Amino acid sequence: MTMVTIVEVGLRDGLQNEEAILPLEVKREIATGLMAAGLTELEITSFVHPRWIPQLADAEEFANTLSISEGVTTRALVPNRRGLERALHTPVDEIAVFLSVSETHNRQNINKSVKDTLLALREVTAEAKHRGKRVRGYLSTVFGCPFEGEVSLTQTALICTELLKMGVYEISLGDTIGVATPRQVQEILKSLTKEIPTAQLAGHFHDTRGTALTNAYVALEVGVTTLDSSFGGLGGCPYAPGASGNVATEDLVYMLEGMGEKTGVDLDALCWVSDRAGRYMGKALPSKVFNAWLATRRLKEEKSHE
Amino acid sequence: MTMVTIVEVGLRDGLQNEEAILPLEVKREIATGLMAAGLTELEITSFVHPRWIPQLADAEEFANTLSISEGVTTRALVPNRRGLERALHTPVDEIAVFLSVSETHNRQNINKSVKDTLLALREVTAEAKHRGKRVRGYLSTVFGCPFEGEVSLTQTALICTELLKMGVYEISLGDTIGVATPRQVQEILKSLTKEIPTAQLAGHFHDTRGTALTNAYVALEVGVTTLDSSFGGLGGCPYAPGASGNVATEDLVYMLEGMGEKTGVDLDALCWVSDRAGRYMGKALPSKVFNAWLATRRLKEEKSHE
Repeated sequence: MTMVTIVEVGLRDGLQNEEAILPLEVKREIATGLMAAGLTELEITSFVHPRWIPQLADAEEFANTLSISEGVTTRALVPNRRGLERALHTPVDEIAVFLSVSETHNRQNINKSVKDTLLALREVTAEAKHRGKRVRGYLSTVFGCPFEGEVSLTQTALICTELLKMGVYEISLGDTIGVATPRQVQEILKSLTKEIPTAQLAGHFHDTRGTALTNAYVALEVGVTTLDSSFGGLGGCPYAPGASGNVATEDLVYMLEGMGEKTGVDLDALCWVSDRAGRYMGKALPSKVFNAWLATRRLKEEKSHE
Repeated sequence: MTMVTIVEVGLRDGLQNEEAILPLEVKREIATGLMAAGLTELEITSFVHPRWIPQLADAEEFANTLSISEGVTTRALVPNRRGLERALHTPVDEIAVFLSVSETHNRQNINKSVKDTLLALREVTAEAKHRGKRVRGYLSTVFGCPFEGEVSLTQTALICTELLKMGVYEISLGDTIGVATPRQVQEILKSLTKEIPTAQLAGHFHDTRGTALTNAYVALEVGVTTLDSSFGGLGGCPYAPGASGNVATEDLVYMLEGMGEKTGVDLDALCWVSDRAGRYMGKALPSKVFNAWLATRRLKEEKSHE
């Protein structure tokens, strides 16, 4: 039995890719529900410019007013020094930084070369640590880039080493566009863990092609015990109807608990949270476990009305 | 590289669980499309009483009028001797029979004990073989029963042995209610293959809780190279909105090809078939690869209209 750490990224990676903009009080209700369901690692928002991600424009207010349960660690994504300063004016516990392995994706996303991004992140990380915050790193396009296709594993390993050197405590390896297949995940992780301590790696899988849960399973088999997910499977790209988001926390928890692992998450409590979010957004959420829960609940309600 | 055999069950297991009843010409178009996409093992219908499954009430006419491409093998499910006689009056290549491991599920489904079902199937199988048809067996609730919960692995092995003894050439092990998790699949298959030749086993996974593709992956890792799936992921139970069907053929093919396996299936051609079915049914199909394909196609169409 392994204790698997689930990093719940729905409030950030999930919401930033949803069309609906949730009001502060709904976000607060969701975050409180996630904590009550037993999720202890929450990424709550991103301090990017509101012009880019209006869904998270309330970052300061949300981070400043959210009441955090004991034992819960919060983190916020920052794109640069300016974002860091905003985050540091809130009680958020940890900072998350990001870059891509592939040059083209990094330029499209951050408008800088990978090399210059690493220089900037070194500064951001040093400052965050100086101010008493741990820093997590997101590495995007590890399993494939929409512009370059296959990416260099050597480049991935180099960037990971650089991130650890600058003091990032954990690197979340992202299948940003959801193209990874299980043997590829196995090969990349087995190769990376020869140079990078497994305990400092996390898996971040998107379900665009249905392989996210399988990839999470394979990551776990290789020894990676920290996995990112979004409640309800939130995060379908608003510009691509039908596109899927992060692996769903419910599905991940169901699989892990069924495998005898411990997650500390109460599935029923979690499904109520997704239900609240789905109702507010007026959309069906992709999590299969959540949908099975919904179907069971509807049947029960129908019976009680008979 | 392994050649993986995909048994496309969408026209039977998929459609029998969909609310919409497809007219003969739409079914014919779909079947023709599936063959054109490279699927060579098709379960096309079921000869159960039309009262139970009106979606497949056209079994005779469909089986008798479908033009089969070279190299394609068709099969039809039969519940009993009467169903077999109906099937034998069509040019369907193979017969499929079924029963459950768990006594309660078998009684609910077939109205007989497992023992009596095996006796009846022995007769059906003998007659089918006598008339020149190969017989495939479906074993339901192998990974869990909605009434009894966990099922006996000893019972599973015993039934498999009986099925092989009566001349069934392959047993498809069904996660009927979609509760299986990967380590369970691994344990059950590893244990079963000590007594049953792996080449005579197939995996049949439902995606009710999101684990179907992972379970298929694990089955393959154990050495099972025949997997059942439905185009589009068809087969959500009409009485449980949001419930998921079989593992989607598209997602299975994407994963397998990405792992370097060969399936012989053209994903683009297959997605056009699911598109046709989804449009006719007026519903979103669960396959993630199909939805990613749809999103890409819509973006292209929008661009070409600009």
